[in-house]
Amino acid sequence: MRQEQVMQVSEQRQWDRLMQMAQLGAIPGDGVNRAALSDLDHQSRRLLLSWALPLGLAPSVDALGNLFLRHEGTDPSLPPVLAGSHMDSQPKGGRFDGIWGVLAALEAVQAIREAGIATKRAIEIVAWTNEEGGRFAPGCMGSMAFSGYRPPGTWDDVKDKDGLRFGDELARLLAAEADIPRRPLGFTPFAYVEPHIEQGPLLEAEGLDIGVVTGIQGSRWFLVEIAGKTDHAGTAPLSLRQDAVQDMLRAITALNALTADPEDVLRFTVGRVEVFPNSSNTVADLARFSIDLRHPDAAVLTARGDAVAATVQGAMVKCRATVTETFNALPARFDPMVQDATEAAARRLGLGINRMPSGAFHDAQFLVPLCPSGMIFIPSRGGISHHPAEYSTPGQVANGAAVLAGVLVDLADADPRIPA
Amino acid sequence: MRQEQVMQVSEQRQWDRLMQMAQLGAIPGDGVNRAALSDLDHQSRRLLLSWALPLGLAPSVDALGNLFLRHEGTDPSLPPVLAGSHMDSQPKGGRFDGIWGVLAALEAVQAIREAGIATKRAIEIVAWTNEEGGRFAPGCMGSMAFSGYRPPGTWDDVKDKDGLRFGDELARLLAAEADIPRRPLGFTPFAYVEPHIEQGPLLEAEGLDIGVVTGIQGSRWFLVEIAGKTDHAGTAPLSLRQDAVQDMLRAITALNALTADPEDVLRFTVGRVEVFPNSSNTVADLARFSIDLRHPDAAVLTARGDAVAATVQGAMVKCRATVTETFNALPARFDPMVQDATEAAARRLGLGINRMPSGAFHDAQFLVPLCPSGMIFIPSRGGISHHPAEYSTPGQVANGAAVLAGVLVDLADADPRIPA
Repeated sequence: MRQEQVMQVSEQRQWDRLMQMAQLGAIPGDGVNRAALSDLDHQSRRLLLSWALPLGLAPSVDALGNLFLRHEGTDPSLPPVLAGSHMDSQPKGGRFDGIWGVLAALEAVQAIREAGIATKRAIEIVAWTNEEGGRFAPGCMGSMAFSGYRPPGTWDDVKDKDGLRFGDELARLLAAEADIPRRPLGFTPFAYVEPHIEQGPLLEAEGLDIGVVTGIQGSRWFLVEIAGKTDHAGTAPLSLRQDAVQDMLRAITALNALTADPEDVLRFTVGRVEVFPNSSNTVADLARFSIDLRHPDAAVLTARGDAVAATVQGAMVKCRATVTETFNALPARFDPMVQDATEAAARRLGLGINRMPSGAFHDAQFLVPLCPSGMIFIPSRGGISHHPAEYSTPGQVANGAAVLAGVLVDLADADPRIPA
Repeated sequence: MRQEQVMQVSEQRQWDRLMQMAQLGAIPGDGVNRAALSDLDHQSRRLLLSWALPLGLAPSVDALGNLFLRHEGTDPSLPPVLAGSHMDSQPKGGRFDGIWGVLAALEAVQAIREAGIATKRAIEIVAWTNEEGGRFAPGCMGSMAFSGYRPPGTWDDVKDKDGLRFGDELARLLAAEADIPRRPLGFTPFAYVEPHIEQGPLLEAEGLDIGVVTGIQGSRWFLVEIAGKTDHAGTAPLSLRQDAVQDMLRAITALNALTADPEDVLRFTVGRVEVFPNSSNTVADLARFSIDLRHPDAAVLTARGDAVAATVQGAMVKCRATVTETFNALPARFDPMVQDATEAAARRLGLGINRMPSGAFHDAQFLVPLCPSGMIFIPSRGGISHHPAEYSTPGQVANGAAVLAGVLVDLADADPRIPA
């Protein structure tokens, strides 16, 4: 009997869990605002544990707050297969981005256990800390520290809008979860699989069920601060001003020119803008904005990204600019083993697949140097994400969990690869 | 003997009073935070009275809490000359804005009295209630009610950040000052003169001592909201986005062109900018910014201001804009009699003057329809105001008080004007 005939994911159970999670931080229009390390984040982790512990999964948490739930293998000495995603959301996010990947892993593992399938390797569910970067920038802190891409203390002094430090909020989480066994930060999994909504329109447009993700385009993030001089809006002649808003305007205009791409592949976004003192009759002495630059070709991303600081500086007429690179992830290519296992599991279930790159970055990007990694996409209605209207159907999320269950069993039982 | 040779303002006395007042609400960096109708405001009025009453000035207070100190004239039946300003400050304000105008009037009247000069008309010092509007918006409540521009109960329900009502706080002040004679609200002065720091850099830049203020430029304020569509910064192609930040950029660029002024008289400021959801990896679906547009010429202000909405709309490529005018005050012109008296007094003292409009609002604006009105400016270091670093030298404030003394004597003895 094929394993897919034995394993039965529950569409209803998974959907109910998604909707229960969506209550934690619910905002109008079916949205979710659940910031990393917030009280709501604490609550969502407790809710996850309330489902996982009765199944017999063993919890652990590392120094970055990454939460693991272990389904033991027949040979506990082997490195586990890791599967999961993140539980934090954008400030005006939806009910699926991130959280579904964690709940899909739980559903898959539960289906495997209910089917009585024993795997050679353990399977660990993971919930990475602060993938979104909406409260504490940048995102992917948990996976970056786990993989050794950055030392764990790197972001301790990063502050949120209320001036709270990441380091303090992380310590608060760890104190609240003192009852959960602590594990060392980082290990080498046998493989990593991250289920996620597509966050783009392609699967829906093509009527397909599963995206076999080939890789992730590279991303570079910058924070630009432009310092001018405050003045009275009614009195200071424009020629004498050092108006931070006006030099910000020049900088973004110059960056638009730098990043222009007739093929429309490059992604350039200024999504965050803050001005101080932000009073209508006061010339601003500080303007701050973010740059999000992405491209699948490492050479293009490097060339344009390396020119950002000089472009901003060249645009300054009256003010002084500081440009800080806050995030740099080169394009990542996913392992053929994970891609092939995903395609095979989907085909066994009769699902339509497409091999496709990811436009968004994900924690999986940082696992690529560590172990064979990959992602499983399901359709997003209208390609909308990072928005309350984000939606995938109960059947689509069930398909994703079922494919993941197949992939996990395959990988957990796979022969070790012969090093190339 | 010329009166200026008789009248001697005391640089030291005035400076000491300024510095004593600056202790009431002192904040770091030599700043002052003395909100209208606060306990500190009560204390500053008592301090003023402690200097004025021993001189023999007669106090009175009206229903808006405007405080008057009368130096009697030889013909008490004639309308008095009024001089003063306000004693409240911005939340992070300085030691001169407002309060100096009141203390200069006190110093001028004291010099007149000490010189034994009798004037035909009385001179009244005034401290207007709540000019800044920092605690209770809008500002200029005292002068607006005094002049009949608004009925006195207009702002009773306006609340501060702590939920305290203006009406209640005003009643509290009047109760605390029950020992001061109450006078009816409003009268027609012979003239009004308001000494004030320039709040701009021109006098300092030109090495001049006194600004003869020709009027207050007109102001139009707008709020622009640009609505787009949120998208994932990594996935949405730029050609398909409705990016509110990018259309805001186009709108401000177009407004810069609309408001360009080779003579650098027009003031165009975007001081407040807000973007939503304000996340670095999310395309913004809402951008909001303020426009503060000022010009001394009503025709220019009307023409440019009337074109703002169409300019913003014309700049929209992907988004929808809403433009709301939130304030419209046409320019006020000060009376030649007051301007000429100011110039004459300054020249008699050998001071350098410039005729100049005021970029900022002042209580004087609301006196213009009531009586011949004007203002006397002194230099502001670096043009800085509404900031702890606000500064004028002891000599500069002494010059201002000396000129005011000359103007007050001239006006208090002037022949009545023949109605035109």
